[in-house]
Amino acid sequence: MPGSTFGRMLTVTTFGESHGPGVGVVIDGVPPRIPLAAQDIQKELDRRRPGQSAITSPRGEKDRVEILSGIFDGTTTGTAIALLIRNEDKKSSDYDNLKDLYRPGHADWTYSAKFGIRDWRGSGRASGRETAARVAAGAVARKLLAVRGVTLIGYSREIAGIRAARVVPSEIENNPARCPDPEATRRMVEQIEKAKADKDSVGGVVEVVASGCPAGLGDPVFDKLEALLGHAILSVGAVRGVEIGAGFEAARMRGSAYNDEPYVEQGRMRTRTNNAGGIAGGISNGMEIVVRAAMRPPASIARPQRTVTTAGEEVTVEVEGRHDPCIVPRAVPVIEAMTALVLADCLLIQEPYRPR
Amino acid sequence: MPGSTFGRMLTVTTFGESHGPGVGVVIDGVPPRIPLAAQDIQKELDRRRPGQSAITSPRGEKDRVEILSGIFDGTTTGTAIALLIRNEDKKSSDYDNLKDLYRPGHADWTYSAKFGIRDWRGSGRASGRETAARVAAGAVARKLLAVRGVTLIGYSREIAGIRAARVVPSEIENNPARCPDPEATRRMVEQIEKAKADKDSVGGVVEVVASGCPAGLGDPVFDKLEALLGHAILSVGAVRGVEIGAGFEAARMRGSAYNDEPYVEQGRMRTRTNNAGGIAGGISNGMEIVVRAAMRPPASIARPQRTVTTAGEEVTVEVEGRHDPCIVPRAVPVIEAMTALVLADCLLIQEPYRPR
Amino acid sequence: MPGSTFGRMLTVTTFGESHGPGVGVVIDGVPPRIPLAAQDIQKELDRRRPGQSAITSPRGEKDRVEILSGIFDGTTTGTAIALLIRNEDKKSSDYDNLKDLYRPGHADWTYSAKFGIRDWRGSGRASGRETAARVAAGAVARKLLAVRGVTLIGYSREIAGIRAARVVPSEIENNPARCPDPEATRRMVEQIEKAKADKDSVGGVVEVVASGCPAGLGDPVFDKLEALLGHAILSVGAVRGVEIGAGFEAARMRGSAYNDEPYVEQGRMRTRTNNAGGIAGGISNGMEIVVRAAMRPPASIARPQRTVTTAGEEVTVEVEGRHDPCIVPRAVPVIEAMTALVLADCLLIQEPYRPR
Amino acid sequence: MPGSTFGRMLTVTTFGESHGPGVGVVIDGVPPRIPLAAQDIQKELDRRRPGQSAITSPRGEKDRVEILSGIFDGTTTGTAIALLIRNEDKKSSDYDNLKDLYRPGHADWTYSAKFGIRDWRGSGRASGRETAARVAAGAVARKLLAVRGVTLIGYSREIAGIRAARVVPSEIENNPARCPDPEATRRMVEQIEKAKADKDSVGGVVEVVASGCPAGLGDPVFDKLEALLGHAILSVGAVRGVEIGAGFEAARMRGSAYNDEPYVEQGRMRTRTNNAGGIAGGISNGMEIVVRAAMRPPASIARPQRTVTTAGEEVTVEVEGRHDPCIVPRAVPVIEAMTALVLADCLLIQEPYRPR
Repeated sequence: MPGSTFGRMLTVTTFGESHGPGVGVVIDGVPPRIPLAAQDIQKELDRRRPGQSAITSPRGEKDRVEILSGIFDGTTTGTAIALLIRNEDKKSSDYDNLKDLYRPGHADWTYSAKFGIRDWRGSGRASGRETAARVAAGAVARKLLAVRGVTLIGYSREIAGIRAARVVPSEIENNPARCPDPEATRRMVEQIEKAKADKDSVGGVVEVVASGCPAGLGDPVFDKLEALLGHAILSVGAVRGVEIGAGFEAARMRGSAYNDEPYVEQGRMRTRTNNAGGIAGGISNGMEIVVRAAMRPPASIARPQRTVTTAGEEVTVEVEGRHDPCIVPRAVPVIEAMTALVLADCLLIQEPYRPR
Repeated sequence: MPGSTFGRMLTVTTFGESHGPGVGVVIDGVPPRIPLAAQDIQKELDRRRPGQSAITSPRGEKDRVEILSGIFDGTTTGTAIALLIRNEDKKSSDYDNLKDLYRPGHADWTYSAKFGIRDWRGSGRASGRETAARVAAGAVARKLLAVRGVTLIGYSREIAGIRAARVVPSEIENNPARCPDPEATRRMVEQIEKAKADKDSVGGVVEVVASGCPAGLGDPVFDKLEALLGHAILSVGAVRGVEIGAGFEAARMRGSAYNDEPYVEQGRMRTRTNNAGGIAGGISNGMEIVVRAAMRPPASIARPQRTVTTAGEEVTVEVEGRHDPCIVPRAVPVIEAMTALVLADCLLIQEPYRPR
Repeated sequence: MPGSTFGRMLTVTTFGESHGPGVGVVIDGVPPRIPLAAQDIQKELDRRRPGQSAITSPRGEKDRVEILSGIFDGTTTGTAIALLIRNEDKKSSDYDNLKDLYRPGHADWTYSAKFGIRDWRGSGRASGRETAARVAAGAVARKLLAVRGVTLIGYSREIAGIRAARVVPSEIENNPARCPDPEATRRMVEQIEKAKADKDSVGGVVEVVASGCPAGLGDPVFDKLEALLGHAILSVGAVRGVEIGAGFEAARMRGSAYNDEPYVEQGRMRTRTNNAGGIAGGISNGMEIVVRAAMRPPASIARPQRTVTTAGEEVTVEVEGRHDPCIVPRAVPVIEAMTALVLADCLLIQEPYRPR
Repeated sequence: MPGSTFGRMLTVTTFGESHGPGVGVVIDGVPPRIPLAAQDIQKELDRRRPGQSAITSPRGEKDRVEILSGIFDGTTTGTAIALLIRNEDKKSSDYDNLKDLYRPGHADWTYSAKFGIRDWRGSGRASGRETAARVAAGAVARKLLAVRGVTLIGYSREIAGIRAARVVPSEIENNPARCPDPEATRRMVEQIEKAKADKDSVGGVVEVVASGCPAGLGDPVFDKLEALLGHAILSVGAVRGVEIGAGFEAARMRGSAYNDEPYVEQGRMRTRTNNAGGIAGGISNGMEIVVRAAMRPPASIARPQRTVTTAGEEVTVEVEGRHDPCIVPRAVPVIEAMTALVLADCLLIQEPYRPR
């Protein structure tokens, strides 16, 4: 029944519920001598926290991180790093009327079925709040990747059916939709606001691109790089699909169009196209790694929905509260974090730290 | 660097290359007292092997399975089950001219980058032949699931852009495309033949549906059921994307349309729709589990493609040989097998075997 | 490089150094509905903490535990339980003179060799303080075992060569040596005090006995119950040997004396002797499980010892400070905790929690 | 319920029963470019197989190994290596009279309790024959270690209470007891023959010494090198205790005697004594690694012993057959193999293979 630990050479173990004392994570396997301060982590948490803009939840969580272990004299020591984020703006009373029913689209019923008990305050362990711990861990992984020359960017590739047609990196953090295409941004925000006005919600697609990865990451057979990425990303609550490179579009291509042709540029192997998304045979090929996650619309909506009580009676529920009409912009740092954790894990296996 | 083992309560470890003595698998954690004969495994291998029809590779592999351990008096004993499938129709000479170059779309270059050495005969460990071992293991998992009332069907949901509009289960095994829609079948076969004539290949989408799963399978956080399925299915060579239930389409839906509304039928919790694909919060909810895999077109095509030699010189290559123009029909039992292995693993955690 | 996580169905992940903000643990896989309060954990921590008696370290650590997650309405919920123990009585200055040398018998040099960096304040991660987190986790495991009818006792079987000839359970917690034999206690304490006066230290043997375990715990081949116990117990800093049942004495016995003869008593299988220590073929047989750990004398002694500086120069060092002359009495709850964690892990695999 | 897989960076998965088609192993994570032929493995199997001398079982098993995968052009490729050893000299009929009772000292009853079923032919999966697969895997690990300058020797340190007082390496393979002390050999053989004449059996202690290990092997906290060794060695059927360096004797030493004093010799850190057995704080220190395993006397003896039938009736049994009166000499290569597997696993983590 565990499941709170992920990774092989770099492992993360998260803990915490939305309405308990806090959430946190233990990151084990980080090599020594990497400079790390709370601020490195805080800046990623700030990208995920609610209240960032008019289109996200207005909850006032500050998400201040405390480093509990693994750092000495400002650098990592090679031992387990524990991070704690205390919960602050908890309103358990918001959930009093939801105690005895199963919210549609939520994990209320499945947790009850599995555990015979359920922390009904804000989804408990199934809350999106758990992803704060992942983002904190991802920030550590990103520091480690940066030292090795690997960088990641992430953005909303699509929201409410509106697709970003191009990627202007400087745009991403300048708009509430985390959209890389200035033209698409306005329409995305419009759709989110419209859904909010309708007491409804919308989904979208997050895209993450990693540059600078050496060839050789990932392992044959079951631990192919895309399999590890798929595991990591599909473990984020609202994700319903994952694709690599051309992804589902590859299913509609012919081999002659899909196959990326290799060539050599300045002594380095490259491919003319990147339909493979940087991974061939489960192993990175040195091109950009491209991964996308399909995010369903948030389950908590204030519209009346039919459901059943824990006693089995049919009722109508309106899930009031300070919920996000669209989780995609806040999910960008989460998908980045999961990608960073997998890449760091594979990199440490392929090119481990050596003292001296 | 390992990666040949997968699973938690039910583990599979595969071995073997396309041109070595054989491929095989060790399945550990199978409960005792499950009747198991070679024929149970053989019938699934026969669905995967080449030479089944005019649209698959004409290679003559018989894929005869031998049970090496774990069976006593016709039933499982609770100990590790080893299965061996010897390679028969190997033509290593087919690959002589490919020894010194990297085939486009293949793992030739990435294996060389990772290992500094490569078994160039038929992709070695990266060969699709490794999936025979998975299908053999999946057959064991299916027996175990059947005992607990869980059944799976799989089919080609889409080939070369042609989509099956409906699912007629009795059709599936009656046509070379493994297509569940008689109208779509003809057009799929047509497209495959056309691609073959063009010395090209096509991709598609496999869909697997599991019925009879109890609620409660899968674990919170990183080992969500969809994460385990994603890991398993994305570890199959040609898969470039995985989705659950509404999948990528969910990204374009509103919450009011996506949320599956619960109701109670004959004392059993059900939902009016199944956009969640049978999984909420990472845990099965008792509805049908629906998963789809996007398969890229096979990399081996006889058309001229540009590539580089291992020495870095640009050349043109035509990958001759007995290759499949479309792998989707033969991939159906592989995706089924991976789904079965994950479900059996989760089922054994949630509802383990108890002696007496 | 990880290593801070242990267990299969019940996993523990510890974090923390002796001179950082604190130590703690995440326990994952604990079944729901087990009543758990901070006091349940505190009482075990109090058995481990320094300052308990005249023969232990006088450090004033209070070791107050805070539950950070996994508890709702006073019971476990089935999700990860995080526990935090803040460090209080840290005197890093005690270690200033040890910064540039390798203490004999300590891990100073090996950590430097592995990580190229070392937290020299009080052994850092290698500190015995990390075992507070294990004892906290063990307290949770013991609650879980108690619910299933399994209980453990532990005691100092031997200290400084003085062996307890008999086990009077009521004696154990009534003397500073945690010795179960009133006659031996006095001599053990005498030896400890004598060593202390000599600025030296002594070792001993901890014995743990678990009663009420069902038959069937442990798995064939590599995860035999004794192998899991050995792993767990040998992972405690000062342990240099582990034995089960007759242990090393079995090597001197003949088969006719060693073999435990089975008989049936009130419908339950028992053996006339228990040389096997409750485990046959790696699987518990329903008899008492008996395990012993050899503890070396503490490395920190105030006597002059020869060593080298980090620059390689020979020096003499006296390790002053508030150190234990004998760690055995305080190690008893640690070895109990490791035993409890392994038994709980195996029990949850063999007889898992089922809702309703 | 699995348990047939062991290791982290180098994993082994064994399969097979004493009276099925054969036993075998999959070794995953072996780096590429290591020369490996069947003969490298065969020579270790020949040290373990029965029929080597007058004091071992006269069974005629040839234990011929077949390499099924992972080798190309005479070297490893980095992919999974599968090895198969077919069973030959099976006499299932020897066990007909044991079908309905539980042999004293064997795992008959515990397997029945766990699985509700039991392969009664020659202990099935619990048979010592499974260790042939371990020795085969260990041979591969030894090749890998040899390439890195690590070598192992093992021998009978003690048999039937007779202790080898000195270690003359050249003696070990020249006598049936695998005893390194010519004076002790004669007395050991005498005791074994005496036990055999008495239809009884004797135990002993195997010692393994590894030279050439770099400092830095093993990981903090739960995966300390001694914990991994303990796990590996205690997973061998007849082992009842494990100790490192001074081991249980350390419990009787004072700190001033136990602590190994460091010094520098030719720029290399060494210690004047080696009570730590080459491991401090769970990490190798560059000195010889010394580990000992206590082997109980074999359970199968032809003397009358009291036991019960599967129906619970008291009976007397004489376990006839071709059994070893002392397993220690044949266990030497098994304990060596387990030690080699752990060291290779740790070495690959600390100093992994890097492609040119």
